[in-house]
Amino acid sequence: MLPHTIGEIDPPQRLLMGPGPVNAHPRVLRAMAADLLGQFDPEMTSYMNEVMALYRPVFGTGNRWTFLVDGTARAGIEASLVSMVAPGDRVLVLNFGRFGLLLTEILARIGAVVETVDAPWGEVVPMDAVAAAIERFQPKVVATVHGDTSTTMAQPLDGLGDLCRAAGALSYVDATATIGGMEIAADRWGVDVVTGGLQKCLGGPSGSSPITISDRAADAIFARRHVEEGIRRDDITDGTGIRIGSNYFDLAMIMDYWSEKRLNHHTEATTMLYGARECARVALGEGLAPRYARHGAASQAMMAGIRAMGLTVFGDERYKMTNVTGIYIPDGVDGEAVRRRMREDFEIEIGSAFGPLQGKIWRIGAMGYNAMKHKILITLGALESVLRAEGYACPPGAAVDAALAAWNKASIT
Amino acid sequence: MLPHTIGEIDPPQRLLMGPGPVNAHPRVLRAMAADLLGQFDPEMTSYMNEVMALYRPVFGTGNRWTFLVDGTARAGIEASLVSMVAPGDRVLVLNFGRFGLLLTEILARIGAVVETVDAPWGEVVPMDAVAAAIERFQPKVVATVHGDTSTTMAQPLDGLGDLCRAAGALSYVDATATIGGMEIAADRWGVDVVTGGLQKCLGGPSGSSPITISDRAADAIFARRHVEEGIRRDDITDGTGIRIGSNYFDLAMIMDYWSEKRLNHHTEATTMLYGARECARVALGEGLAPRYARHGAASQAMMAGIRAMGLTVFGDERYKMTNVTGIYIPDGVDGEAVRRRMREDFEIEIGSAFGPLQGKIWRIGAMGYNAMKHKILITLGALESVLRAEGYACPPGAAVDAALAAWNKASIT
Repeated sequence: MLPHTIGEIDPPQRLLMGPGPVNAHPRVLRAMAADLLGQFDPEMTSYMNEVMALYRPVFGTGNRWTFLVDGTARAGIEASLVSMVAPGDRVLVLNFGRFGLLLTEILARIGAVVETVDAPWGEVVPMDAVAAAIERFQPKVVATVHGDTSTTMAQPLDGLGDLCRAAGALSYVDATATIGGMEIAADRWGVDVVTGGLQKCLGGPSGSSPITISDRAADAIFARRHVEEGIRRDDITDGTGIRIGSNYFDLAMIMDYWSEKRLNHHTEATTMLYGARECARVALGEGLAPRYARHGAASQAMMAGIRAMGLTVFGDERYKMTNVTGIYIPDGVDGEAVRRRMREDFEIEIGSAFGPLQGKIWRIGAMGYNAMKHKILITLGALESVLRAEGYACPPGAAVDAALAAWNKASIT
Repeated sequence: MLPHTIGEIDPPQRLLMGPGPVNAHPRVLRAMAADLLGQFDPEMTSYMNEVMALYRPVFGTGNRWTFLVDGTARAGIEASLVSMVAPGDRVLVLNFGRFGLLLTEILARIGAVVETVDAPWGEVVPMDAVAAAIERFQPKVVATVHGDTSTTMAQPLDGLGDLCRAAGALSYVDATATIGGMEIAADRWGVDVVTGGLQKCLGGPSGSSPITISDRAADAIFARRHVEEGIRRDDITDGTGIRIGSNYFDLAMIMDYWSEKRLNHHTEATTMLYGARECARVALGEGLAPRYARHGAASQAMMAGIRAMGLTVFGDERYKMTNVTGIYIPDGVDGEAVRRRMREDFEIEIGSAFGPLQGKIWRIGAMGYNAMKHKILITLGALESVLRAEGYACPPGAAVDAALAAWNKASIT
């Protein structure tokens, strides 16, 4: 490929109804077109403070330490774990899908002693099993995913904080796939660190990870503070704990950067910050309760449409994430051929699956800017047509009608 | 601060003439307003391949492995070091400023055995001192910064690769502050891994780190490959080397993501990728040689203007980076008051300094979209006015005239 032949960016107008990323809200992209500021410019630091204020309600918290990690959602996960966990620390992971496995993977690299409390893909971990595991294993940290898109399950988290605090453990929640679409209640759950991403229910691009940290967890992290040489200052003293294994993900230095200390750590990803700020403004402008209800209506509509086609929804419906739906691929249908026709004929993306579910289910998302009635109806109509073309007979028009009725019912109640 | 009172993004139109970030090229911001794509969408993977092709000439390399790390420039540095260096490995760092210290800091957290070969701030490390240190220390990896904005010095790198390869060492270069403004010659230097950032001479926002990796270094990194559970595949086998200490920065998995294997690692930061792609298109469209000459003319103009005001340029001019100029703060002048007036009266940002240079020099940048004749003239005219207001007398109009003459002379030759 010759560089001079590479033209202007001009992506197709694709409707992204997979498990994320999804289409960004136009207001978010417009906000990201604003010109840059120096990282210690008073206007820039004001924007940083505004981001902190905007994300507190999004996380359901009053935590002072609520800010952004510069990287994708996975960067927020790793920053949390490497800052909370030292080599040799015991960590209990609630494991009910691919992203539970990711937590164990990151922790293994940190050198943690990891134990999991497992549920089969498509179920969640009962809280009494968590309690028993905490009692048995005596972890220093308990880590879990909130909604795991690989299985479409959302782990109930009420009560988790009490269990952890009673055992003297810190707690971590990866809310990448639910933040902005399902309620995040960091304070009510009583959990210590929660992270997210923009590219799912917040309707922004991947590349910035909102995070919130309780004072208790912040104290533990600051005890490991080690300011890098070259930017040492008299007003910032190192802690006595084990140094955090990463510089980029050292949340102690990043908190010092976001505090009035304004320690010079990395150069803030300004454009991503503008985007994250607008994501939260859009969400709070709509109102969090109506926004969660909209995702709930989307889930009801999607399930009704899928079932009207004679298809089966995957997993335990009581714990299903509202923003993504797993659908068994019917016998005799080529799942990848369906996805290809959806993309090529309708410019709609739906998702495949991972691990034990690969080739068994599709995952259709309706999140953020795409958790809208018309986008669900269009997707179901297209899927019906594609399934027919691939040899699967379903009652014509039934899916769209059922989905519309379910949406309307869910929106009234 | 009440979230609902936080309004639309509307930064002041500030001219960023510090050591970076600088104003983004408008084409880059426009490219970033394009809507998103799924990460394995054929159009998206085409864009990824185009980014690889576009950054090869920018790095002066034919390396297959040329792509982006999702995070700020510092993320690219840490990804390189954690993937190249295992605990206990011996690493030699060329240390001539704050960012040399940053390399030692990251390496210490990795558990490397670090030795430095030092130069005072304002000078560079002589290549014979590097050769002697390699001979003495027998490092596995040699790491250096190319241009260190903290001192405005650019380390000459011709010959470094030969020294390293003769000693069986891999080499790493942090080119964050020079890429797109001064020549990066990865292949001619013979170095193995080079990383950059967008927010300086490439005229984009912070948040994406271009990287290039030689086949030799890629082999060493793939030998440490360990694909995470949940996404294991029969066609990707783990290596036998020590597992890389970070999941997010595991360049083996990231290369598998950017290769035709398309391993599902993080969700690519699509909007930042659009921006990085456009940064390279702008640079190659101008032509790299004319672009480097433009930065050279900017340096000549800035130095001529500074000297016409009776001020003194910091550091060894033979090795001065073209895109940033250190200026001694004259006796009796309050450096911070000058910066404040520059910002408040003229909406121009100039930089302060770190460590031993704090309070001693200003740093004025002219990079990327801001390495332009008129922006240098405006900055110098403003500085003259501000210095006069702060009690420093300088010949009226001399700086601008001298800078214009120097620019014109440098642009002709």
